[in-house]
Amino acid sequence: MLVERLKELGYIYEPAPLQVAEFHTAVRTGNLVFTSGQVSRLNDEVMKGLVGKDLDIPQAQRAAEICAYNCIRAVGAVADIDSIKRVIKVLGMVNVAPGFVQTPEVINGATSFLNKLFGPENTHARSAVGMTIPHDFAVEIEMVFELEG
Amino acid sequence: MLVERLKELGYIYEPAPLQVAEFHTAVRTGNLVFTSGQVSRLNDEVMKGLVGKDLDIPQAQRAAEICAYNCIRAVGAVADIDSIKRVIKVLGMVNVAPGFVQTPEVINGATSFLNKLFGPENTHARSAVGMTIPHDFAVEIEMVFELEG
Amino acid sequence: MLVERLKELGYIYEPAPLQVAEFHTAVRTGNLVFTSGQVSRLNDEVMKGLVGKDLDIPQAQRAAEICAYNCIRAVGAVADIDSIKRVIKVLGMVNVAPGFVQTPEVINGATSFLNKLFGPENTHARSAVGMTIPHDFAVEIEMVFELEG
Repeated sequence: MLVERLKELGYIYEPAPLQVAEFHTAVRTGNLVFTSGQVSRLNDEVMKGLVGKDLDIPQAQRAAEICAYNCIRAVGAVADIDSIKRVIKVLGMVNVAPGFVQTPEVINGATSFLNKLFGPENTHARSAVGMTIPHDFAVEIEMVFELEG
Repeated sequence: MLVERLKELGYIYEPAPLQVAEFHTAVRTGNLVFTSGQVSRLNDEVMKGLVGKDLDIPQAQRAAEICAYNCIRAVGAVADIDSIKRVIKVLGMVNVAPGFVQTPEVINGATSFLNKLFGPENTHARSAVGMTIPHDFAVEIEMVFELEG
Repeated sequence: MLVERLKELGYIYEPAPLQVAEFHTAVRTGNLVFTSGQVSRLNDEVMKGLVGKDLDIPQAQRAAEICAYNCIRAVGAVADIDSIKRVIKVLGMVNVAPGFVQTPEVINGATSFLNKLFGPENTHARSAVGMTIPHDFAVEIEMVFELEG
């Protein structure tokens, strides 16, 4: 049960609401789920700022892990998360300070978390790049998931 | 008929040409269509500049709506737009001035338009981020669509 | 045979390793393959720097071609590359110097290469935008491929 593994990793799972502003947290098509971009905010933990200036790499890795957890929650808005077969693709977007180029190191915070959940043999493809993230959040991640059946 | 709804929203529909430079406006695989990134240009309306400096949010929302309409036209290059079942995923890319972080507000111009066309219950997943858009266009959007059967 | 065509274009093909750091070079789902972002590095050819400052457009086009070749190699990590039916979607990401907006011209280096391999009638959809690329590589490209059957 994914909920158990999440608990071991420190997360009390609850699915994301389907509706966020005027759009949806995730959309299913066939056995694929495309999530909306998930930012680095969870309950009282709001991680904002430029990575490489306001946040160091360990802090940004924590932000990336939160985004990854929020992507799992986003799947939960449209499907049973125990039906997740695999994460197909991760697009990791980092709110970079000028000159900060260690974006893969940041997104490793998401990858390590996903590998603990699904096993390293079921790991994903990914890109990890720098841009301007909404409302100054430190990290935003969107994913494509494959579901069973 | 989508063409009628587009007309009510002020657009005289015609499909995009398939070929744009050396690549295609959209490609279909199974019942999915992936569009090329569509910029904020429609007939004589060419919206360029940095959002937050050269364009304010209402102007940038108009730019985003034009991009969304161009994505519909892009589907029209490879399929009958009345076969569109749903927009699955929107990647909204905003040509941001330094420090401008209200990219979701900008891409709301596309989301509102799509919700008028397809209904809010059929809304999409999305990300809305800031980067450098080709040739200084204000907004660029790419989408994944699901077609009927 | 794609290997022959690659040879004519100057590339001695060998597939990418599946594992890169903690994630995979590419993941297959059904008849689609999603690649990880591939950077502009091939053997001794390591193309780094800001496009528009450290690299001119012809150099950046070469960087884009290398990324495109690396995407083919990435498919090779999970499938026989002769089973590639088509490139569906290209996301071309350019490491832009401030003010550099000719990103489509840069990614044309990838598109021209793909069109030589697969034929212009089988060309792809694409976006070509500017952002911050990991470790200062000049170009990064991720693709979605469709395989036969």
